[in-house]
Amino acid sequence: MRVGVIGGGQLARMMIPPAVALGVELRVLAEVEGSSAALAATAVGDYRDAATVLAFAADVDVVTFDHEHVPQDVLDALVRAGIPVRPGPHALAVAQDKTVMRARLSAIGAPVPDWARIADAGELGAFLDAHAGIAVVKTPRGGYDGKGVRVVRDAADADDWFADAADGLLVEEFVPFRRELAQLVARRPSGEVAAWPLVETVQRDGVCAEVFAPAPRAGTLPDVARELAVRIATELDVTGVLAVELFETEDGRLLVNELAMRPHNTGHWTIDGAVTSQFEQHLRAALDLPLGDPSPIAPVSVMINVLGGPSGERMTDRYPRAMADRPEVKLHSYDKESRPGRKVGHVTAIGGELDDVVARARAAAAFFQD
Amino acid sequence: MRVGVIGGGQLARMMIPPAVALGVELRVLAEVEGSSAALAATAVGDYRDAATVLAFAADVDVVTFDHEHVPQDVLDALVRAGIPVRPGPHALAVAQDKTVMRARLSAIGAPVPDWARIADAGELGAFLDAHAGIAVVKTPRGGYDGKGVRVVRDAADADDWFADAADGLLVEEFVPFRRELAQLVARRPSGEVAAWPLVETVQRDGVCAEVFAPAPRAGTLPDVARELAVRIATELDVTGVLAVELFETEDGRLLVNELAMRPHNTGHWTIDGAVTSQFEQHLRAALDLPLGDPSPIAPVSVMINVLGGPSGERMTDRYPRAMADRPEVKLHSYDKESRPGRKVGHVTAIGGELDDVVARARAAAAFFQD
Repeated sequence: MRVGVIGGGQLARMMIPPAVALGVELRVLAEVEGSSAALAATAVGDYRDAATVLAFAADVDVVTFDHEHVPQDVLDALVRAGIPVRPGPHALAVAQDKTVMRARLSAIGAPVPDWARIADAGELGAFLDAHAGIAVVKTPRGGYDGKGVRVVRDAADADDWFADAADGLLVEEFVPFRRELAQLVARRPSGEVAAWPLVETVQRDGVCAEVFAPAPRAGTLPDVARELAVRIATELDVTGVLAVELFETEDGRLLVNELAMRPHNTGHWTIDGAVTSQFEQHLRAALDLPLGDPSPIAPVSVMINVLGGPSGERMTDRYPRAMADRPEVKLHSYDKESRPGRKVGHVTAIGGELDDVVARARAAAAFFQD
Repeated sequence: MRVGVIGGGQLARMMIPPAVALGVELRVLAEVEGSSAALAATAVGDYRDAATVLAFAADVDVVTFDHEHVPQDVLDALVRAGIPVRPGPHALAVAQDKTVMRARLSAIGAPVPDWARIADAGELGAFLDAHAGIAVVKTPRGGYDGKGVRVVRDAADADDWFADAADGLLVEEFVPFRRELAQLVARRPSGEVAAWPLVETVQRDGVCAEVFAPAPRAGTLPDVARELAVRIATELDVTGVLAVELFETEDGRLLVNELAMRPHNTGHWTIDGAVTSQFEQHLRAALDLPLGDPSPIAPVSVMINVLGGPSGERMTDRYPRAMADRPEVKLHSYDKESRPGRKVGHVTAIGGELDDVVARARAAAAFFQD
């Protein structure tokens, strides 16, 4: 069993442990030498080049992804060559373009913020007028971790983006939300779907900072979120992990914020906190193997991202003090040079009681952030 | 942080996942191409050759082991070259020779079966006369999984072994035991020791078949075993994981059967059943990092080995049915060709109640053994 992964970031890296456990051979096409997933990198090259990707994929059983940026013409070339691509091009097209995503979600009746595709400042102004003078503008493609997202209050606030936006921009209503949640599911080609518990995510500067699993004080929202995510995965024919990022609005509704069709930062807690991690599940789904049990192994798991500082040191440099202080917290390093704001690792604590688990996870994370 | 592992078997393989998680670079000196730990193999060569081992070890921070068979002259060459070796040569000498082990254990007052070093059939006959006509003869070196161990009832029963036994053979009293147990601990150079729960091990044909963690109905034995293992690790200056295989005698005492100074089959359950696995702990100890929490994450864990059959197929061939039937059982393949009796993988189930967990683990294992 050979799985080819396009992209050598930390998501590909975190597929290595379950691949080793299961005896699945992982092959990674990395962008650069010395990538986070270098241990499993069998090729280094440009994922936008069809010949490079075809050569990489020639002797794997299935191709999957560390990111959603592989162009449709490259995906189509893989399909034409008879190589299973999971998730497939039609599903990925929805994840690759936020305007397409909004249109598809609206078409299947998923709850989303009011939205429109806009071509110029005039259309933005009209949207602002209809939405109390505040909105969120997004570039349809290429955004991540808060990049390509801007809160606007004036029709001229996105002028610098329109110049490069051949397909226009996406504008959405500004949603006053209580908090952000995420529902992860995995789906295999046969249709089987498995859902992890709904989680609460805390974002800082557009970057996932903390995840609480399961989402506390959620009432009936877990049932609503699971049903919604299963429906989206099924309607969009997603294979592999699907992350549905959600707003819990101030009036208690769920709205879909973003979709990701790959293992997701809000699911890193599953490595240490669930019977089957999102990375193992993604491999199983890609290989069309039966899915594993997504149940949590403890009442509470808390994941905190470690963001790099300016120092250029590595997360491992701080291990002696962090490990001595918190021997029960699981430390994960992505083997990346530190840069300000860069995700270089995460920590996860599990336990019986939310306040205690949060405190222990934060205590461990604090050793890496000053 | 770079750890060099001598030996490319499944124990080295199972160090890869925690090394990836922690951001520790693992480098393996494998015996052959295509070893179980091939993903991390940076060299292939003979571990009995000092030049080969020195070249491999030149740019790692510490050397540790997948097995205990590296000759003392090679270990000494590493030490002379200034390369940390953990466990060190003096500790490994005790694990490498069962007669030395018995002598050292006796010297520190650890409870062991009656034993003697014997040079010929006459000495074996005398030992048999003194022990009700039954004893166990062992070759001091190179035995594993029941090989090099023989129950004897006649002075001539070991004649074929004496010819090759320059240092004589080890003879021990035949211990009528209720069951076999194992106590694993890890110790770092600074002296810190961490102990996992005492486990019960079921052996078949001299090979570990099943492990129940913690050992059920053990009364005060866990305290006795932990104190004993900590004392052995400390007295012998072991660094890394130490496995103490124990007999629980029919009259309720503990006797030390064997020692292993590396991750051990009786500790595989810790991958899925403990906060810190024996493989992560071995890396931490080798690097002299603070040890992780060895607490179990569930009341009961059960590990069952998967032994190869004659078919030549791989464990992964049976995944579809096993995974569909038991989505919650963790499957581990060592990526080895199947041979009769060869350990090719294991399965682990965790849960709240022993009978249930045993049943689920056996149901999963049964898919791989017919």
